[in-house]
Amino acid sequence: MHYPKSLLALIEAFRTLPGVGSKSAERFAFEVLSWKPEKRKVLIDAFFQASERLSSCPVCGALREGELCTLCSSHDRDRQMLCVIASPKDLYALERTQNFRGQYHVLDGLLSPLDAMGPESIGINRLVKRVKENEIGEVILALETTLEGDATALFLKQELEALNVPVSRLAFGLPMGSSLEYVDSDTLAHAFSGRLKF
Amino acid sequence: MHYPKSLLALIEAFRTLPGVGSKSAERFAFEVLSWKPEKRKVLIDAFFQASERLSSCPVCGALREGELCTLCSSHDRDRQMLCVIASPKDLYALERTQNFRGQYHVLDGLLSPLDAMGPESIGINRLVKRVKENEIGEVILALETTLEGDATALFLKQELEALNVPVSRLAFGLPMGSSLEYVDSDTLAHAFSGRLKF
Repeated sequence: MHYPKSLLALIEAFRTLPGVGSKSAERFAFEVLSWKPEKRKVLIDAFFQASERLSSCPVCGALREGELCTLCSSHDRDRQMLCVIASPKDLYALERTQNFRGQYHVLDGLLSPLDAMGPESIGINRLVKRVKENEIGEVILALETTLEGDATALFLKQELEALNVPVSRLAFGLPMGSSLEYVDSDTLAHAFSGRLKF
Repeated sequence: MHYPKSLLALIEAFRTLPGVGSKSAERFAFEVLSWKPEKRKVLIDAFFQASERLSSCPVCGALREGELCTLCSSHDRDRQMLCVIASPKDLYALERTQNFRGQYHVLDGLLSPLDAMGPESIGINRLVKRVKENEIGEVILALETTLEGDATALFLKQELEALNVPVSRLAFGLPMGSSLEYVDSDTLAHAFSGRLKF
């Protein structure tokens, strides 16, 4: 016996969420179908309201609710430091460290030729324009250490150094609280070559 | 820096899905916000259509799309065998075995006094009425082997045996393809005491 059509469609829709396989999607679908209408409405409403109220800041690309992006309109942040990230989510991760007082620039993803993500589609032009038009003293690349992250970092380094803007990148090394035996050898090699005077 | 309010509400809404913690809920929320409106619409539409089109069969409690529940209206199924399950999902798991040709009865959950789930709230009356009004030759309890599943099975056994209906329960034992060292001792004890003539 097969699932009814609309149940199948719901399972398929849940499967498009990140990290959700067919088992979890089935579980989600049966769960929401067992909910009372009021409980279903909470999810639907949250979805609609977030879709409607949240948009990207036209300056930095971060999530904003309403007119103003909190960081771009703040007088409290160093406008000469620009931290480049690949997703609005990363902004919150960095802000949690309470370490950086500059501003952010959110790319629309990372360079990935296989997925047809070129410099234009991830918004590098917008970043270059922003750097040109403002007196940016340093651009810090906070991109993930994957093939795509590395390629994007390298490309940005070339573009930005052509504008005579110093570019830095987050340090590689041991995660805090790690024992050496559990650190992969690539990380260990980076930590070794980037060793600090003690 | 905190998440915008409507983002927080969306994360909270996703957390109500089964097995979704705060990390996954954040991931879901940021993912759907990065989707194009058309892609978001697919999820919303699937949700609405499933909510609207699927309902519980008034006879057996299984999911039905439209007027008729496929199994209750089928002339192909043995109407004297009734398999009792606790969720519409279990029906599909059992049907996949292609082993059972009877009909089903879906309870609205399991007895759980701590969650205020008594015999009435899980619809035991409806089951007893169905058994009384039809010539049921055997009721098979296919409930999970938890405290709640066992309590519900025991309660049903008493109720149904008072009607002189034979009640059986799914066998306990080794799962197929298991090696003894990975089977928990409770299961092993059940498999031992329920050993079969070979």
